[in-house]
Amino acid sequence: MRILEHPDPDDIGIDAVLAALADPMRRQIVCRLAEGHTDMACIAFELPVSKSTSTHHFRVLREAGVIRQRYQGTAILNSLRADDLNARFPGLLDAIITAQRTTGATAGTGA
Amino acid sequence: MRILEHPDPDDIGIDAVLAALADPMRRQIVCRLAEGHTDMACIAFELPVSKSTSTHHFRVLREAGVIRQRYQGTAILNSLRADDLNARFPGLLDAIITAQRTTGATAGTGA
Repeated sequence: MRILEHPDPDDIGIDAVLAALADPMRRQIVCRLAEGHTDMACIAFELPVSKSTSTHHFRVLREAGVIRQRYQGTAILNSLRADDLNARFPGLLDAIITAQRTTGATAGTGA
Repeated sequence: MRILEHPDPDDIGIDAVLAALADPMRRQIVCRLAEGHTDMACIAFELPVSKSTSTHHFRVLREAGVIRQRYQGTAILNSLRADDLNARFPGLLDAIITAQRTTGATAGTGA
């Protein structure tokens, strides 16, 4: 089983977090997890993209320190690292979730 | 004189804003402007990069809707679109400025 590497809380970088969350699909994933879904399997998100693209998005979020992933059998379960993010970058996660929920429908047009 | 295009307040996209602010030098520019510098000439920032790289960073910020630029003679003056950003994405700008000020020294390591 491959190792799923995660940055330590103090090593979470603002560059990587902002770059990870500059993508609308990755923000959608974060918003779903923020609704209280913990240990949500990648497949349960039903993202309208290929499996490899989906895996890529989850990996970017994990490597940035936004989500935590762990294996359960062959599935990978995801949870939001809200406490780590709120401690390191106060207010950032909530502001981005709010932005996504209020402007999500047009978020893709500004890139 | 070239036209400096700016997105309308309602067209500022979260994708473009987050991507623009995922760069440490662009966050430095924003933090300087947030200190109360309005109409600050690009050259006054004394960024440790080439003129073309500097121009690129300012352009990315302008096209994302983060800053406003205008000509004064041959100089380009910059100001932060704080009101537009705060209205569209409440709390986001402050959270990113706080993140930059508290973790700026290590911000480049997470990308």
